[in-house]
This record gives sequence, structure tokens and C-alpha cells, in this order.
Amino acid sequence: MKINGNFMNLKDSYLFALIDKKVSEYRESNPDKELIRLGIGDVTLPLAPAVIEAMQKAVAEMGNAETFKGYGEYQGYAFLRRAVCGYYEEKGVSLDENEVFISDGAKSDVSNILDIFDTDNTVLVPDPVYPVYVDTNVMAGRRINFINGNEDNNFLPLPDNSTEGDIVYICSPNNPTGAVYTKEQLKIWVDWALERDAVILFDSAYEAYIQDKNLPASIYQVPGAKKCAIEFCSLSKTAGFTGTRCGYTVVPHELVRQNSSLNRLWLRRQTTKFNGVPYIVQRGAEAVFSEPGLSQVRESIRYYMNNARIITETLSKLGIWFAGGTNSPYIWLKCPDNMSSWEYFDYLLHNYNIVGTPGAGFGNNGEGFFRLTAFGNTDNISKAMARMSNG
Amino acid sequence: MKINGNFMNLKDSYLFALIDKKVSEYRESNPDKELIRLGIGDVTLPLAPAVIEAMQKAVAEMGNAETFKGYGEYQGYAFLRRAVCGYYEEKGVSLDENEVFISDGAKSDVSNILDIFDTDNTVLVPDPVYPVYVDTNVMAGRRINFINGNEDNNFLPLPDNSTEGDIVYICSPNNPTGAVYTKEQLKIWVDWALERDAVILFDSAYEAYIQDKNLPASIYQVPGAKKCAIEFCSLSKTAGFTGTRCGYTVVPHELVRQNSSLNRLWLRRQTTKFNGVPYIVQRGAEAVFSEPGLSQVRESIRYYMNNARIITETLSKLGIWFAGGTNSPYIWLKCPDNMSSWEYFDYLLHNYNIVGTPGAGFGNNGEGFFRLTAFGNTDNISKAMARMSNG
Repeated sequence: MKINGNFMNLKDSYLFALIDKKVSEYRESNPDKELIRLGIGDVTLPLAPAVIEAMQKAVAEMGNAETFKGYGEYQGYAFLRRAVCGYYEEKGVSLDENEVFISDGAKSDVSNILDIFDTDNTVLVPDPVYPVYVDTNVMAGRRINFINGNEDNNFLPLPDNSTEGDIVYICSPNNPTGAVYTKEQLKIWVDWALERDAVILFDSAYEAYIQDKNLPASIYQVPGAKKCAIEFCSLSKTAGFTGTRCGYTVVPHELVRQNSSLNRLWLRRQTTKFNGVPYIVQRGAEAVFSEPGLSQVRESIRYYMNNARIITETLSKLGIWFAGGTNSPYIWLKCPDNMSSWEYFDYLLHNYNIVGTPGAGFGNNGEGFFRLTAFGNTDNISKAMARMSNG
Repeated sequence: MKINGNFMNLKDSYLFALIDKKVSEYRESNPDKELIRLGIGDVTLPLAPAVIEAMQKAVAEMGNAETFKGYGEYQGYAFLRRAVCGYYEEKGVSLDENEVFISDGAKSDVSNILDIFDTDNTVLVPDPVYPVYVDTNVMAGRRINFINGNEDNNFLPLPDNSTEGDIVYICSPNNPTGAVYTKEQLKIWVDWALERDAVILFDSAYEAYIQDKNLPASIYQVPGAKKCAIEFCSLSKTAGFTGTRCGYTVVPHELVRQNSSLNRLWLRRQTTKFNGVPYIVQRGAEAVFSEPGLSQVRESIRYYMNNARIITETLSKLGIWFAGGTNSPYIWLKCPDNMSSWEYFDYLLHNYNIVGTPGAGFGNNGEGFFRLTAFGNTDNISKAMARMSNG
């Protein structure tokens, strides 16, 4: 019996575990200091009233034999897939209900989708990158190529003829940089993928934060994308579902490789290895897409984007370079005075009692950069920015 | 870019899809006939009042900023893991909270657990078997050996010195046969696994249906099991959570292979590829293990076991051989008159308007056998059995 030796190739300490350790140590020595956490990518506002109402109703149904729900439809309930299709129509994208798979969030699906691909594939990821894309492929033993994000390309790397990969992860708006590709830039990626039959795994978890209507809120707004891209969406940041767990993955019928429909492969994988999202949660998700629901979640997004504005205004005043923050809840700043990521982490922690996320934790190109998030409480964020402004 | 070619090795039509097709066709030609479904492994009774109450409270918390929950603890909330440990204590098994991982059900975990094992392993499964164990390994490209369950061994196969496997799936009480291993029989499996450093994946989804207190309700009631077994449990059948999705997987600290703690490997896999079970559902699960909760779910189990009794009494009267039905909601009968599984399926459908599951769908050794389930409504089950009794 052999364990999966690829696990030995994973980086030892997980970024957030290391941050927690340093924070605990600081807290022990400085119990009186008020720490303000701007590093965690977790929401703080409660679920929308429309969602709460829908879930209360669904819980009550589950307590009654006549309305009780057991196993649900394999791809998720049609009522929710229809709601998702309606949301896409508003973006000018037409989908078939059967192209939509309800998930328990993008994190599971962006990893599990790899089951339908051979391990003998090269995966292309940007650097810096959300660690999950790398770790999940290290576990599977796939080859990983990196494409460089940096200040020069505003952390929006684009392929050229020498760029190689069979499967490429694109996250836009990006975690950790908050950078957003334009439609023209995504078209370069789509054309690159079509030319070599590569597949784009498009992480669209932050699409609801886009303010600029000219920026694409779905890869399928780019012609040809249905033939080469799988899109992963999540209600975690759109509707505060980080602790409620629901998302949706789109696998277009046009996405065919080696005469196999990837949609059918994903269906087979999910019917074998997954048993669906709770009925209660699917009713809550359906309510997100209702008129009152969308109105309410957008209010929460406006709250977070106002936080982002407070942060970016402060950074601008301080003359600190940054990406993100205008169409994303993440702000990716260049550490001042040539500090390294972890030096800046310690500097913020000790001097301003602010906790952020060192960019080095997201890859080599993250060294010298730092991520702040806009998900906190506005008063705390204003306080934190005042500390930084006042030196 | 290569898709996973192993998917081509999967059996084409999924068992339940084929059944649905035949049933639809019959319905079209016979719209007046009242079909009674005794084939589906889905519960019909609603969630327990204690669970409903807990989930309503949790939903309300999610609507309030002060009590809102975002991302949860990686292995599941401590309050639930503690409740699970308490449930194990009642069975004489002592577990550390960190040996428990809250899951969205056994189905996901019995498949995803394989991520921590090399693909270069031989998996041993019984025949007949729950198709998921086979399909998930076919997808990964692992070698599969079968060990024979049959009338002679009461569908409780045991290994001998020639039995080979690195990873063995044992499901007891069994799906589809309802057969239950004794402690002595499980000890043979544990000793076999310890001798060759194999790992047992013990599917304990139906443990709550065991009536005979001498039968083991956990693999860990067998000495040595903590060194070689992972146990998968589910609230699907214990508490009617098929549409609510919650279970727990136990990976003991003593389970070490090649100097690696499988507990730590599973934690790494889950922290990378999973984001937990909804808070609301975890509060509902916690309520299952409360005194009123356990009392309520056991009442539902008694209801189902009474259904099983009605079925087994009828089969006994008709002189039909069967396994299961006394410590399990599944009854595995030998098709009378040497009928094949599908012949008996058609026979029951056309002559008695009863829908069951052909044993052939669970493997070669299922040919000539048939599965009935006790999850339906008592009146319908009585009616169905009367139809069979009266010829």
C-alpha cells in the first residue's frame, strides 16, 4: 500500500496557519493592543433577508413529510439552475440549464474538475496565484508552468506563442491581486486556448464586484469561450455564503475534447463522487437571484467596495503603488521602502496593529507585495487607515 | 490536452437511470397502475423536530451580524466533532476530536479519500458492491480485485492468505445485501490488513440500523482497527439527511503509513479541496446527537425496520431466500424460479406494479438476486407485500 507521495511535494506551512501563529504570538506579548484584521478573505455582513426567509421556509418544509426533500437532482435543482441561467441572460450569455452544475462552492469544483483530465497534462497558473490551484495539481502529480504577473503588466499576464499549457487557471477579478482582465485581454487567452485545444478554468468568484460595465463578468462574454472554457462561480463573496456553501460551475455543451463532452464527463464524476448541495441551501441560493435578493446582496457589495475605496484612497495619499480595489474587494500593494512581504507584515502588525497577508505567500512574484481585503467593518477599516496615514 | 481516458472504462448506463427508463416506459403504457417503489435507497420521513429547531435557530443567526458565521473550522465545528466523539463513547470507542472530520456525506469522502493514496495500489471490493467504490477507482485508474459474496458465505466474504489488496472497502451493514459482519469476522479483516499494511475503508453508513447489540457498530470496536482503518459515517440514513448532507469521517492518529499520518494527509487534502459543511447543517447534525434528537431519529429507524420486518415476513412465507432486513433497511433476496435479476424486475413491475433494484446492477454475483428497501411508507409496503402474497 502506497500513500500518495506527491503530498511530500506540497509546501510545508500553509500561509494562513503561519499568519495565525505570528498573530497569536504578538497577542500574547501585547494583550492590550487592538488588532485590526485586513488579511482574511472572509465576509462579515450577514445573509440577505430574502435568503434568510427562503431558508426558514425550506427548513420548515424539511420537517414535514409532504414537503420533505431527500436526494435532489444530480446537477442541482432545476429551480436554481434556471435562476442561474437568468442571471447569465442579464449578462448577455445564454446557457442551457444542463450546462449548469450547482456546487458547494468554487473551491471544491476548481479542484475536483481535474478528475476529468489526465494527470499527464501541463497546468498553467499565474504567479502570484491562489495557492489551491497549485496544491491541487501538486497532489495529482501534474506538471505546473507559471506565467508572470508583475507591476509591468499590472498583474495581468497574457500568453504569447511560447506559452505552454494544456489547462490554464484564470481568476478575474483576481485573488490575490484584484486585477481584472478586459474583454480584449480575455480574447487573447481564449484564442490561445482554441489554437492548442487547451482548456481554460475560469474562476469567476468575484464577478459581482465589478463596477465598470465594460469589464467582462463572465468568460462567455468572449466569443469562442464556450468551446474552451469552464467557468466557476460562487455565492461566497457575491452573497456572503462562505459559511453556507453554494456556487455553480458551467460546462458548455460545445466544450468537447477527443470526441468527449466535458459536460458529460463532469456529470459522471459528480454523480459518482458527490451527492449534491443541501435543499435548504439551494433555496437560499435561489433567493439570491430574486429581485429583492440581488438588491440586498448588491447593497452588501457596495458596503465592501466603499471599504476598498477607503483603503485605496489612503494608499494613493501615501504614494504606495497598488492594483485592485476598484473592481475587486482585494487590494494588492507594493511594500514601501523595498520591504519584503514578511517584513511589511511585521511592520504593519507591530507599528499599526494591522494584520494583512504577505504577497510572498502567493508565489515568487508576490515577494515585495501585500494583500489587504475590504471585507471588514467600515469603522475598523477607517481606523486602520487613519493609523497608517498618521504615521 | 488529454481528458481522463479512464472514464471510457466506466460501465455505460448507470443502474438507476436504466430503472427509471423502464419505469417511465411502463407508466406510459399503463397510466392507471399504482406503482409502489421499493428500490430507491432514499428516506421518506421528515427531519426530526430537534433538528428542525436547531436549524431554524442557526438560520436566524446567519441573518444577524453579531452571530453570522463565515468560514468554519477546517475539520468542522468543534461542537459537532465533540458530539460525534460522545456518540462513539457510547459504543465504547474513544476518539480525539481531531480524529473526526465533518463531511457532506459518506459518498464524497469514500471517493475523495483516495486522493491520499497512490494510484499504483490495488483496491479490493466485494462483489456485489455499491457501484461508487468501483467507479471512483476506475476513474483513477487503479487495479481492482473482487472478493466473492454469495449465498454460501451469506454475502459476508472473508479474506484468506491468497487475498490481495492494498485498500479494501468494507460496508457493514451492507449496501446492497443488508448483511452484517460479526466482531470476529471483522477481526479477520483487521488482522489481514495489519499483516500487509493494507488500509480498510469502512463504510458505516447503516450502523444505526443494527438491532443486535452484539454486532459491531464501528470498526473501532475491533482491536487493532485504529492502526489500519478509516471509518465513514453518514447522517443520511441515520437521521434522514439525504437532502441535507452531513456525515463524519474518522482517521485515527494511529493510522500511519510510510511515516506519514493519514490524518494529516486527509486534513491537507480537505483544507486544499473542500471548504466545509454549512454552519446551519452542522447545527442540525449536532441536534441529531442530543438526547431528544437521538430519541427522535431512532423512532424513524424503528418505523423503517418495521417496514423491513413486513418485507422479510412475506419473503419467509413465500419461501424466498434472503439476506439483510434484520439489522439493515436493505433486503437482498434470491429471485424465485431461477429468474435473472432483470427478469424478476420486469416480473415484479408487470405483475405486482412493484419497482425494486436488480442485483445484477451491483456486480456479477448480484445476478439472480434483487434488492428491496424499507424506506417507504408502511401502508404502501404492506400493500406491495399483500400483492406478492396473494399471487
